[in-house]
Amino acid sequence: MDSTASTTAHTRQHTISLTRTPNLSEGSPEAKRQEIARYFTDTFDTYTRLFDCLADDAGYFQKAIPLRHPLIFYLGHTATFFVNKLVLAKTLKERINPNMESIFAVGVDEMSWDDLNDDHYDWPSVQAVLDYRAQVRETVLYLINTLPLALPIDWDSDWWPIVMGIEHERIHLETSSVLIRQHHLDRVQSQPEWAPNRETGEAPENELITVPAGTVRIGKPYNDAYYGWDNEYGEHQAEVTEFKASQYLVSNQEFLAFVEAGGYQQDSLWSEEGLAWRQFTKAKHPTFWRWHNGWQLRLMTEEVEMPWDWPVEVNYHEAKAFCEWKREQTGQPIRLPTEDEWYRLCDAAGVQEVGPGTANANLHLDHGASSCPVTRFRHGQWFDVVGNVWQWTETPTYPFDNFKVHPLYDDFTTPTFDGHHNLIKGGSWISCGNEARLASRYAFRRHFFQHAGFRYITSEAEAVQPNAYYESDRLLTEYAEFHYGDQWFGVANFPKAMADLALDAMAGKSTGKALDLGCACGRSSFELARQFDEVEGVDFSANFIRLGVEMAEQGAIRYSLTEEGELVSYHTRTLVELDLADTASKVAFYQGDACNLKPQYTGYDLVLAANLIDRLYRPRRFLETIHERINQGGLLVIASPYTWLEEHTPKEEWLGGFKKDGENHRTLDGLKEHLGQHFRMVGEPRKAPFVIRETQHKFQHTLSEVTVWERVPEQDH
Amino acid sequence: MDSTASTTAHTRQHTISLTRTPNLSEGSPEAKRQEIARYFTDTFDTYTRLFDCLADDAGYFQKAIPLRHPLIFYLGHTATFFVNKLVLAKTLKERINPNMESIFAVGVDEMSWDDLNDDHYDWPSVQAVLDYRAQVRETVLYLINTLPLALPIDWDSDWWPIVMGIEHERIHLETSSVLIRQHHLDRVQSQPEWAPNRETGEAPENELITVPAGTVRIGKPYNDAYYGWDNEYGEHQAEVTEFKASQYLVSNQEFLAFVEAGGYQQDSLWSEEGLAWRQFTKAKHPTFWRWHNGWQLRLMTEEVEMPWDWPVEVNYHEAKAFCEWKREQTGQPIRLPTEDEWYRLCDAAGVQEVGPGTANANLHLDHGASSCPVTRFRHGQWFDVVGNVWQWTETPTYPFDNFKVHPLYDDFTTPTFDGHHNLIKGGSWISCGNEARLASRYAFRRHFFQHAGFRYITSEAEAVQPNAYYESDRLLTEYAEFHYGDQWFGVANFPKAMADLALDAMAGKSTGKALDLGCACGRSSFELARQFDEVEGVDFSANFIRLGVEMAEQGAIRYSLTEEGELVSYHTRTLVELDLADTASKVAFYQGDACNLKPQYTGYDLVLAANLIDRLYRPRRFLETIHERINQGGLLVIASPYTWLEEHTPKEEWLGGFKKDGENHRTLDGLKEHLGQHFRMVGEPRKAPFVIRETQHKFQHTLSEVTVWERVPEQDH
Repeated sequence: MDSTASTTAHTRQHTISLTRTPNLSEGSPEAKRQEIARYFTDTFDTYTRLFDCLADDAGYFQKAIPLRHPLIFYLGHTATFFVNKLVLAKTLKERINPNMESIFAVGVDEMSWDDLNDDHYDWPSVQAVLDYRAQVRETVLYLINTLPLALPIDWDSDWWPIVMGIEHERIHLETSSVLIRQHHLDRVQSQPEWAPNRETGEAPENELITVPAGTVRIGKPYNDAYYGWDNEYGEHQAEVTEFKASQYLVSNQEFLAFVEAGGYQQDSLWSEEGLAWRQFTKAKHPTFWRWHNGWQLRLMTEEVEMPWDWPVEVNYHEAKAFCEWKREQTGQPIRLPTEDEWYRLCDAAGVQEVGPGTANANLHLDHGASSCPVTRFRHGQWFDVVGNVWQWTETPTYPFDNFKVHPLYDDFTTPTFDGHHNLIKGGSWISCGNEARLASRYAFRRHFFQHAGFRYITSEAEAVQPNAYYESDRLLTEYAEFHYGDQWFGVANFPKAMADLALDAMAGKSTGKALDLGCACGRSSFELARQFDEVEGVDFSANFIRLGVEMAEQGAIRYSLTEEGELVSYHTRTLVELDLADTASKVAFYQGDACNLKPQYTGYDLVLAANLIDRLYRPRRFLETIHERINQGGLLVIASPYTWLEEHTPKEEWLGGFKKDGENHRTLDGLKEHLGQHFRMVGEPRKAPFVIRETQHKFQHTLSEVTVWERVPEQDH
Repeated sequence: MDSTASTTAHTRQHTISLTRTPNLSEGSPEAKRQEIARYFTDTFDTYTRLFDCLADDAGYFQKAIPLRHPLIFYLGHTATFFVNKLVLAKTLKERINPNMESIFAVGVDEMSWDDLNDDHYDWPSVQAVLDYRAQVRETVLYLINTLPLALPIDWDSDWWPIVMGIEHERIHLETSSVLIRQHHLDRVQSQPEWAPNRETGEAPENELITVPAGTVRIGKPYNDAYYGWDNEYGEHQAEVTEFKASQYLVSNQEFLAFVEAGGYQQDSLWSEEGLAWRQFTKAKHPTFWRWHNGWQLRLMTEEVEMPWDWPVEVNYHEAKAFCEWKREQTGQPIRLPTEDEWYRLCDAAGVQEVGPGTANANLHLDHGASSCPVTRFRHGQWFDVVGNVWQWTETPTYPFDNFKVHPLYDDFTTPTFDGHHNLIKGGSWISCGNEARLASRYAFRRHFFQHAGFRYITSEAEAVQPNAYYESDRLLTEYAEFHYGDQWFGVANFPKAMADLALDAMAGKSTGKALDLGCACGRSSFELARQFDEVEGVDFSANFIRLGVEMAEQGAIRYSLTEEGELVSYHTRTLVELDLADTASKVAFYQGDACNLKPQYTGYDLVLAANLIDRLYRPRRFLETIHERINQGGLLVIASPYTWLEEHTPKEEWLGGFKKDGENHRTLDGLKEHLGQHFRMVGEPRKAPFVIRETQHKFQHTLSEVTVWERVPEQDH
């Protein structure tokens, strides 16, 4: 955004002046070393001073809210983070204080590995933590002063974890300020340095202003000049239809109408999840509103007369309920914007990044330690497109195409790709560094409070819900990888190899319609559709089918793979990278039973049954009826390792693998016996290998015997 | 044996003259074709005529003994056998009569796949079976007359199943004659062609004659000129100490003393298994003895005055009880001979194979359809070393080294390698073809009756009990193959690779004593003993240890592997073929717990822990105490795929594979943490692949991470 602020009438003095996140590509190494040193000390010391807002020791040790550690944890945590990442990166050979670093390592979000039981913690004294912080400060500064530095600083650079630690601390500058704001008033005290903005006036009438349709292209290249968290990288493109966006963020005044209209009591306005939250918490108004014979607003360290023209601060559920109410009131398609729509608005409003001068937005602590009127910062036809408070979106956070985790912090964003963490955009008055940049993508559980409010829009388009879900069911992830993932031991992708083999065998035959029976996650179906006009994939498992459908509809699936024990890695596979994007429209997936197929599955030129027959409960019935589905001259391709197990197939149904009349009866004998009446075997059986990955070290390596059968005219018997 | 019979006083006429089993290597193809044609018709027609001994249809359809099919089955069975093997060999394209061939396929022995419930059989008429036999006869003759023939006829020849079918029918000529002998007297009738020998006289006094010590070398080469069943091939060598063998087979007269002395009532003379049989059957005398105011003997179709100088016919249990009784009576170490001792006796007696002339032994139906006096055929200093009746041995049948099953009949002998089927040697009056040769090795359950008796010996040596057991426990067989079997996917044998890697790492160090901890079946232990003075293999599993001990003590282990479904293949692995025979004396195996090792396991220059740590219940304890067992400068080699599973290791004991203080904690981190105090890591971790075979098509393919640790002097911490 333009740093020549449009208004200079406000002359508040404040002493905090935080450096901007550095350009990591340009400049001389020595100047960059100095810039990073200042960026570090600025951040580290400002963070330490934030805790001056606590009134006494109890302020450190008493929890602000039950589901969070007390603030003493956060005082230590940002220091420990430096040590942990630098040890992980092997830049630091020894820990500074193993005890502190164990206590302060985890507990920020509601992660499975967090331990929030206070009985398990013997918190150190404030002074001990401050002493520890001083040690860490010295160590990091020593590294900054001595580490060899070459530009650009990229993901692989020794400097990356240092910048990561600084940006991490800037995040906690904001989240700790929220915790202080949520703390008991007795436990906090005002500090001149952290004084709020005092401006207020009458709230404006909001109005909806058109944002023209347009293309949004986001996602940072991996050589971007500025530090980013993993979820900012990759590629994403979307066509956004025209919509209208409210000129201002929703003010306390505008939200009051919802409160007074009984919005908190009208269940129909709330989503199921939102209603559950509201009933659990018994919320009746925004969390920072206080009623003392009139509405007041809780700031970091004080309560003030309600500034009606400041943005309201709510969680996603409250924002969404407000939109529903407004939709009812106006009959207009009012909702929260998506992330794409927010970027489109940025474009329409001409918003630019924060530069070195004072921000033209309530960002980066440039304008005091609180919100300010929603009328204060104009951006194009709108106000507060960035800054003041974060803006909730309809978009659960998700990875862009070509997403990769950073090896030093592989669980920063991946656990939030669960459909339950919605993105907030634009930054607040205390967002700084990476947080204040347009590319930043923070996401929180929908019931969380931050310095966050919202802007509403009207649009005829449904909010696009990206697929944020990482499949983690073990069998499904193994099959997803088997179908769409990497190769091991030099063994070619099996579903593709089966499709290729079938297509070879189809040479010269009609390729109208194919059935991929036991399609699992569907890779063969897509491969067959390179040549077939139509491919139907059928599997007994709805879960397998779901992955195939996801791939067909969204062009991508995501899953985690077990590496070792409970450790996982994250993967996205797309049709585009497999050169299969054009096939999706020719493929359809259905749940079905190969032993009892519905009548409509018929008229096929090819039926592929790969790794199917030894998992059927009635394979004989399947073999004896499948000819009814196949056109004369059409092919049946069967591949199987013949792994007969009673848990899948009763022994009397096995096609082979037993003594019959005293002789070895192999499955191939059984196939010939049961298919002989309607099929002619084409060529000889051959073995096709496949590998299924279980962990980074453990694989199933199997040989599937492939036979090709041609449907022949009926004969007398 | 010499065909110029030593006595010609006996001038009985009989009409059966059976050709000898042909030499399959020598001669002209056309002559051989004629010889085989005659061998076939001779056998086929003689077998058909044996059933003339049945008096009426009831003789065919009423069971002779409850655990056997009625004789109608056996009439059809030998014909069906030809068809089944020729179809299996693909020499015959179509079955002759699928219904007959299903009914007559199986049911000969008490095999798991036999179905002896008569309700399940709708037996064809005798005439229908005879008609079927005629069809089969024509078909086989057609093949004999038309199949291309090249000599030698070996295992792979198209002719092998034809000769197999003939030899199979000759076996049934004998076993059906036993069933006829066991049939109700009303159901049988005498036939001139099958008239018994009528000679009898006074029984001789038996005496013991010395057989000098000597080496026995048996086992046919795979290019032997005569047809053989699979268990005759391979190599076996034994040193037999001097012993004494009874001059004659035990006669009815000699056995009478045992009966009259109350031998059938004296439990202490009987083995546990023998006693159970005797109590179940309430036997009080030999099965073919009949009491009609004096002892008579049941022959095939009649009962005769007891010929006291004929050999007694008993099962193994009765023979053994007699020996025990005789041992008590005489104070001499009397027992049955082993197979090796029988061959040594043949050598001492100068016995030769049956030639083209009349046999100098009651063999091959050359001397009538029954036993004859034990004084009739002299062989060196003894009588009836071969012929008259089979002789029970102390030896449960077992495969020779380099044993292989024939692919057309893979379950002829393998199911008898169970320690419950004892070898009978020497043949009886009706044994002919392969049966009459010295190499033949028939074995029956110890309670079975054949035309079989015994000779006893005295020896100071214990009867050697060969290892006949094929391991079939699935996990054990997979590990046996993993340690001693084939390679797949080009992956080197893992236990050997681990030992080689450890030996490499030991270069220049003392190689006194090594511990192979988690040794499983012990391959690494043997490999380490190539260089170490002493290797101790320790495993938690007594079953694994048992295989290692078997390999060390007997130089071989045997196991079956799953091929497909229930079908298995049979394997023998020896130390000799792995060039490890010299190491066995340096290796000892013990059952033990790696997490709680006994104090004596100490003083090692090397501890190898391959694929161990992720199966321990307390791996941390193991790592923290193992240094106490290792000499200064000694090595600890750890290999593991780090497959942590709660079923083996409680999660709090995992060395890695989880988040620790928010960061990925890998097993390698855990190893460094727990071993760092006493060890120095040598070199870098590397990955070693291994493959475990589950079926012919299914494998586990895993990477084990290998780290080498040197014990360092204690340090202050």
